[in-house]
Amino acid sequence: MKEIKSIAVLAARFSMLPGVGRKTALRYANAVIDMTDDEVDAFCAALKEVKSTVRLCEVCGNYTDGSVCELCNTRSKKQLCVVAYPKDVTAIENTGAFDGAYHVLHGTLSPMNNRTPDDLNIKSLMARLDGVEEVIVATNPDVEGEATAVYLARLIKPLGIKVTRIAQGISMGSELEYADAVTLSQALGRRTAL
Amino acid sequence: MKEIKSIAVLAARFSMLPGVGRKTALRYANAVIDMTDDEVDAFCAALKEVKSTVRLCEVCGNYTDGSVCELCNTRSKKQLCVVAYPKDVTAIENTGAFDGAYHVLHGTLSPMNNRTPDDLNIKSLMARLDGVEEVIVATNPDVEGEATAVYLARLIKPLGIKVTRIAQGISMGSELEYADAVTLSQALGRRTAL
Repeated sequence: MKEIKSIAVLAARFSMLPGVGRKTALRYANAVIDMTDDEVDAFCAALKEVKSTVRLCEVCGNYTDGSVCELCNTRSKKQLCVVAYPKDVTAIENTGAFDGAYHVLHGTLSPMNNRTPDDLNIKSLMARLDGVEEVIVATNPDVEGEATAVYLARLIKPLGIKVTRIAQGISMGSELEYADAVTLSQALGRRTAL
Repeated sequence: MKEIKSIAVLAARFSMLPGVGRKTALRYANAVIDMTDDEVDAFCAALKEVKSTVRLCEVCGNYTDGSVCELCNTRSKKQLCVVAYPKDVTAIENTGAFDGAYHVLHGTLSPMNNRTPDDLNIKSLMARLDGVEEVIVATNPDVEGEATAVYLARLIKPLGIKVTRIAQGISMGSELEYADAVTLSQALGRRTAL
């Protein structure tokens, strides 16, 4: 059967979303046909609104719709939790086990993918260490995440600041984003000095 | 953590898609942040294009971007396969086991939900039965689908047209949309006279 072009084009857009395959994308595209014009307009407006309002916090690099994010404005800066991506902030916040501030690197060190320290949000981390007592490195427990943790420890420990790593309660090779709240909470509680 | 409003609004839109829960919707919304402006514009354009180009075929009620769909234009009208929704046409076309034309009811009879024959695309079905030798009723094998099949059989058989039902190779209570091609193909092949 010849596909209707506009449906195929929309399905291709949906399949750019994480975890969406060809079949799911087609289901989504077909569901759009059943939406009202107003609903589609609202969908578009919401897409554009996200792009125009969400930016990176000037201090920590997390998503915000202001210039400085709510967490930077309200949390104590004595403990800084360093994560690779904004979604990891959400994961840790969902545990309720941490009440300090965050710093988002937007990636991890990866010689394979040519990601060097200059590509990560590290300069701004070094610039905000004044008054910080502990830096908790909460990158994924995989090769790149470990390498990033070791790199940060070598950089920050000489400044007399404690650098810790979340405990390997999370199994090696898995993704922080999918860890359940209890596991992630324990990993925070059992963090070890680097 | 306070959610960013525009992300929450977009996630609410994504959760209107079939099978998308709160967590998945948030993942999709976060993925949009990482898209370029051009990609978001293209996404919006694709959404609106589907709404503006896709309409219902004047003859069979299937989706089309013209006035009459490609299947109505090219297929023999001796056999008509009656389905509840356009997605069911796609499912049957994917089996390759049927080369006749279709008729889409846009629903099934449901006294519980106040859906009567007048709410379905049945008038246009009755108007196109001239020259039709067989009507195959391929609604879901559940209570509503069976009721619709029996209703159509009572309406059409008096006109001297053979009315058949796809075989119950598909297990009772399951959904046509998700049947694998082999099962659906066998169900078409073993259809029984009503």
